[in-house]
Amino acid sequence: MSSGDISSAVISRLPRYYRYLGELLNSGVVRISSKELSEKMGATASQIRQDLNNFGGFGQQGYGYNVQYLYTEIGKILGLDRKNNMIIVGAGHLGQAFAKYSDFERRGFVIKALFDIDPKLIGQSFNGIKVLSMDELPEFTKSNHIDIAAITVPKEAAAEAADKLVKAGIEAIWNFAPTDLKLPPNVVQENVHLTESLMRLSYRLNAIEK
Amino acid sequence: MSSGDISSAVISRLPRYYRYLGELLNSGVVRISSKELSEKMGATASQIRQDLNNFGGFGQQGYGYNVQYLYTEIGKILGLDRKNNMIIVGAGHLGQAFAKYSDFERRGFVIKALFDIDPKLIGQSFNGIKVLSMDELPEFTKSNHIDIAAITVPKEAAAEAADKLVKAGIEAIWNFAPTDLKLPPNVVQENVHLTESLMRLSYRLNAIEK
Repeated sequence: MSSGDISSAVISRLPRYYRYLGELLNSGVVRISSKELSEKMGATASQIRQDLNNFGGFGQQGYGYNVQYLYTEIGKILGLDRKNNMIIVGAGHLGQAFAKYSDFERRGFVIKALFDIDPKLIGQSFNGIKVLSMDELPEFTKSNHIDIAAITVPKEAAAEAADKLVKAGIEAIWNFAPTDLKLPPNVVQENVHLTESLMRLSYRLNAIEK
Repeated sequence: MSSGDISSAVISRLPRYYRYLGELLNSGVVRISSKELSEKMGATASQIRQDLNNFGGFGQQGYGYNVQYLYTEIGKILGLDRKNNMIIVGAGHLGQAFAKYSDFERRGFVIKALFDIDPKLIGQSFNGIKVLSMDELPEFTKSNHIDIAAITVPKEAAAEAADKLVKAGIEAIWNFAPTDLKLPPNVVQENVHLTESLMRLSYRLNAIEK
């Protein structure tokens, strides 16, 4: 089936299904009913049935869902059935932390290099991943089949970094700089604005205290 | 006015308004029309008018919005008109990166300590912020008026960390562990699931390539 048939609201929930199904697999669970899954996930059984019906008729009455099948199918839709090569632009604290974080590679996202403009960082390695100069970006991106670039530079440097990435042929940008990038329509982006997430938490804390 | 009158969809957009209004203030802009703001933010003028109408009648025809006023009001709603004391449980790579990240403190979120169970980390400092033992958590939380705790421990350790935080009286948890925490109703949480964010990016990259 084509992933184009699935609504974006469902897509945004898929990584969470993938996580729960992976945990069930690890626990040796072969099949699960929408009711059991809903209790685990804190969602309604009806929402789960609607969401998972996108993946064909596997929620048979009296059988439930085949955990391995669903896990594999959702993995394919999310592009996790292949390795995704990734680079990080910005070898500061956050970039270094990502280089050392093993969960990305476990999911098939392999960090191939860090990039920076700071001569003190260029040439260093973090978790065996080298920091290269921004001048090496175009050549490296091509010869290493890089799919995804994370931007972990300061806000002021983010637009220029994005521009260089787009020119180097990168089509997916994972942006941590607290700014909105203007990108051409063929380049997808996902923003993680940490301070804004913290503000939403602070809002909810205040709302509860009132 | 009470923030209880504002819908959660508007609330989730407030940090972005706050960021844009802050940038306008820094550029010396005193007032702005919803049309100009919509062009900057890539939203429709009608959505901006609807959202900002929650803050009273400041979008007068022929005048536009008072940038300083809106910035201050949204800041109050988000709890940014006061200092929020914060701790980080998990002094690994991500916790250390947060300790060194200046943007949080600039917004009033002051990291007072890191906590860990690793004897090699306890006693170290990052950016002047000390790593304490988990045994010191209850006492430290009380005497330092801690509002918010970030969890940056591995998945397996997250539930226990959350439990200790709740017992210590923490009411807001910023969770980076790739798991859903079960918390009492008086404790608010905001999850940042990095690998799931990366999966959504990977999905969109695949969808564009098809």
